Amino acid sequence: MGNNRPIILGIVGDSGTGKTTFVRGIRDVLGSDRVTSICIDDYHKYDRIQRKGKRISALHPDCNYVDIIEQHLHCLRRGESILKPVYNHSTGSLDSPEYIRPKEFVIIEGLLGYYTRRMRDAFDVKIYLDPEERLRVDWKIARDTQKRGYTPEQVIESLKGREDVSRRYIRPQRAFADIVVSFYRPKGLENETGTKLNVELILRPTIRHPDFSRFIDSGLINEQCCLSATLRRDEGLPVDFIEITGNIPREIGRRVMKLIWDYLPGVAMPEKIIGKYHERKKEKISTPLAIAQLLASYHLVNVKLRD
Amino acid sequence: MGNNRPIILGIVGDSGTGKTTFVRGIRDVLGSDRVTSICIDDYHKYDRIQRKGKRISALHPDCNYVDIIEQHLHCLRRGESILKPVYNHSTGSLDSPEYIRPKEFVIIEGLLGYYTRRMRDAFDVKIYLDPEERLRVDWKIARDTQKRGYTPEQVIESLKGREDVSRRYIRPQRAFADIVVSFYRPKGLENETGTKLNVELILRPTIRHPDFSRFIDSGLINEQCCLSATLRRDEGLPVDFIEITGNIPREIGRRVMKLIWDYLPGVAMPEKIIGKYHERKKEKISTPLAIAQLLASYHLVNVKLRD
Repeated sequence: MGNNRPIILGIVGDSGTGKTTFVRGIRDVLGSDRVTSICIDDYHKYDRIQRKGKRISALHPDCNYVDIIEQHLHCLRRGESILKPVYNHSTGSLDSPEYIRPKEFVIIEGLLGYYTRRMRDAFDVKIYLDPEERLRVDWKIARDTQKRGYTPEQVIESLKGREDVSRRYIRPQRAFADIVVSFYRPKGLENETGTKLNVELILRPTIRHPDFSRFIDSGLINEQCCLSATLRRDEGLPVDFIEITGNIPREIGRRVMKLIWDYLPGVAMPEKIIGKYHERKKEKISTPLAIAQLLASYHLVNVKLRD
Repeated sequence: MGNNRPIILGIVGDSGTGKTTFVRGIRDVLGSDRVTSICIDDYHKYDRIQRKGKRISALHPDCNYVDIIEQHLHCLRRGESILKPVYNHSTGSLDSPEYIRPKEFVIIEGLLGYYTRRMRDAFDVKIYLDPEERLRVDWKIARDTQKRGYTPEQVIESLKGREDVSRRYIRPQRAFADIVVSFYRPKGLENETGTKLNVELILRPTIRHPDFSRFIDSGLINEQCCLSATLRRDEGLPVDFIEITGNIPREIGRRVMKLIWDYLPGVAMPEKIIGKYHERKKEKISTPLAIAQLLASYHLVNVKLRD
């Protein structure tokens, strides 16, 4: 049995939501030799100068070849290589395209991955990253000042300029995800940006998830303080709502990951340490992040084995 | 009924075989607003400097993204736009890609259009241009010295360098064409390059052609001197072999074109004068060329109406 075509995962979210960090952990679980990751924010119609002339944001769907994104996603799903356009972030110009061959797993990361029905149809698993807004702003400021040479004021200015497009085109995509990952600050830690963050996972019944409530009810995990599973409504529809706090002991986290992976009989649990992120150039580990990355990886392997 | 997807015509042939001139006449018949023409010689993997380093010819299939050409042909056939790579012939570099939306008819012109089965499957009508070799050399010298700034010696040198690739990859594509168009010199006119050239049309029974032999047998055309239709073998298989001499009176040529177009009841014969080409910057008319262009156009309209 098993699936021979590439399995396609989407990681969609606004700027600064941690897409790159999230993808890195999944690559670590599955192995770089099995994963192709592609950023689809490069399908711009206009270069930087043209955008200024037209007063259009690079994030706006009208500024992107949405039909070509759709086409390329479906090509990748059929196992075909693509000639992906390349946007040069330093010069702001459109460069010569890049040939990309899909491996077993393809991770599509970007701002507008679930914008149209045809895009959404190409994914096996759709994840939306939705950290609380103040945290996103702090993440974005940290990244853009440390890695892209902006001042905090410039980042805040840019966020203001994008707010309208973000509200109209990016955030509505949350509704189409199978999993929504929302990091947020525990009470009393209003400046935390890393290890101590909690995470909420909204698991929609659009794909079949491991049963977290069973882990808890059966006593397989008895630390309800740091992991909870409740049935809730989200955007009007029933979902599983998993909450994992930043203070979850690493060993309990490891047990949760083992229980998730046990849904894949015969597949060895990857030994690699995941949940890694960088904070002020230091590498740290977040257990909630590790669990979310492992859950995404579980789904990819599961589709590959079963569908 | 009729066909709503774009109808795809191929015009394949070696360098200097008159592809661009041939396409222009079909555009004139069908109207520019209904025709998208695309040159597929731009799908290079390497720019000019890289090719020199690798000692690989731009014509060689290994130097081209053959799989992407296949993919794009099938996208166009389904009516999807493509983001076509662009090769800059002046600088020799790979530029940013170009967005192309297919109109009712798509003409694909290039060196390697019928190289793979998957490419060939995308075409509704496949034409191969195969002028006699000495004529092709003279055409290529004229074009490359007048329009591209080369000396005759440079053109001949370049032809020698391409000979091996041409023999191995380009000329074998002749076997897959529905129509082979071969201009050649009448006896005694060893330097003719234009109006007085004769043409042979090989019509393979892979598509349904108008019955030229009926035109003649029934006396609809009685000038057998300048038009003949015979049954022959070509590459071992039966074909209709049409010969039209350069001295065919224009009015007889017009009658032949009318008889071809009569196979399309209810579609008005285009009034536009076709068969145009440029010789030393002057525009001239070749009646054999006009008939060949009209036959190609007939097939496109026929597929559109009937399939």
